Amino acid sequence: MLTLYSMPSSGNSYKVRLLLAFLGLPYAHIGGEYGSGLTDSAEFRALNPAGKLPLLKLEDGRLIAESNAILLYLARGTRFLPDDAFEQALCHQWMFFEQNSHETTIAVRAAILSYPQRAHLRTPDKLDPLLEGGHRALSIMEAQLQKTPWLTGDKPTVADISLYGYTHSAHTGGFDMPRFPAINAWLDRVATEPGYVPLSFLPDEAS
Amino acid sequence: MLTLYSMPSSGNSYKVRLLLAFLGLPYAHIGGEYGSGLTDSAEFRALNPAGKLPLLKLEDGRLIAESNAILLYLARGTRFLPDDAFEQALCHQWMFFEQNSHETTIAVRAAILSYPQRAHLRTPDKLDPLLEGGHRALSIMEAQLQKTPWLTGDKPTVADISLYGYTHSAHTGGFDMPRFPAINAWLDRVATEPGYVPLSFLPDEAS
Repeated sequence: MLTLYSMPSSGNSYKVRLLLAFLGLPYAHIGGEYGSGLTDSAEFRALNPAGKLPLLKLEDGRLIAESNAILLYLARGTRFLPDDAFEQALCHQWMFFEQNSHETTIAVRAAILSYPQRAHLRTPDKLDPLLEGGHRALSIMEAQLQKTPWLTGDKPTVADISLYGYTHSAHTGGFDMPRFPAINAWLDRVATEPGYVPLSFLPDEAS
Repeated sequence: MLTLYSMPSSGNSYKVRLLLAFLGLPYAHIGGEYGSGLTDSAEFRALNPAGKLPLLKLEDGRLIAESNAILLYLARGTRFLPDDAFEQALCHQWMFFEQNSHETTIAVRAAILSYPQRAHLRTPDKLDPLLEGGHRALSIMEAQLQKTPWLTGDKPTVADISLYGYTHSAHTGGFDMPRFPAINAWLDRVATEPGYVPLSFLPDEAS
């Protein structure tokens, strides 16, 4: 069985739990909340030198890190990842945008405002550029979703799951979501796909 | 013929020119240096709403943005992208690491120190966390390259080309490269692969 190491409150981890739910795949779950020390342990660093969650362990013990790499691995051969080279490139394009322009602004600002451990970063100097960068990323999504119901066209893909992770909670980062009607309609669309689970859903812990 | 819009001095753009050189693929080149205004033009924004380089135009006019999405598209079916699902996942893992942890620290710090337009960002408050984050990213690469000659194992892949883009010029960002002997040996390995071109190599401009 697959084993997923994930952080309950993290959008990067939630993405993977969400795809596993859509696919109906069973897995053992090992949770490590922010501040729990899991990712700092020598045992975990031996599995992932980057010290980050999520981390997927395959049945044979091999490991995959980076949320979007895990999504692409799990989605291969399913309806969430097209086979066509160009359609797949559009998925990749949105997923690299997610890690470079979206997560680094939207998730980072939400984390500063949510986690007490980051309270010292709540200065205009830190928060203002993140607000501007996050709104810019949301505007790029909005422009696409004004044209097509899903980010890469007329079907949901792994790119939508990837971007959903931190977009659905962007309001906790102070982002002005009513400005983005097409994004809000798309968020509703994702949440009504069969198999959907909210961020708060966690499978039983592996022993 | 393929058309590549690229920024001559940018590592993100160079990655794509480097893979095209390794593959021996001909292409038309349209350059836009930082500050040239190309990416702010309405004409370019119609092609890429994110306003970023590189951008690849296929023969039929379809477009792919995001350097690593372009690399994966071009590498498909070549020796630079394994077919095996797990080996491909390792390429993706390193490439998402590149866009989230490496480019956002190493390239950003080098850009602040290199481009006069960013001189106002040369403050300890901005530069110090970037130095720390970049050294952390380089340490993760070093640990892997102490174990295997290439990032994903015993053969060069698109992941190596992706990480080469900003690692080979990391010293311009003030990163202490002598601390990373395995990275330095790997940089030499990339530079002696058949077909290699330096960042300064640009094909003739398309008219």
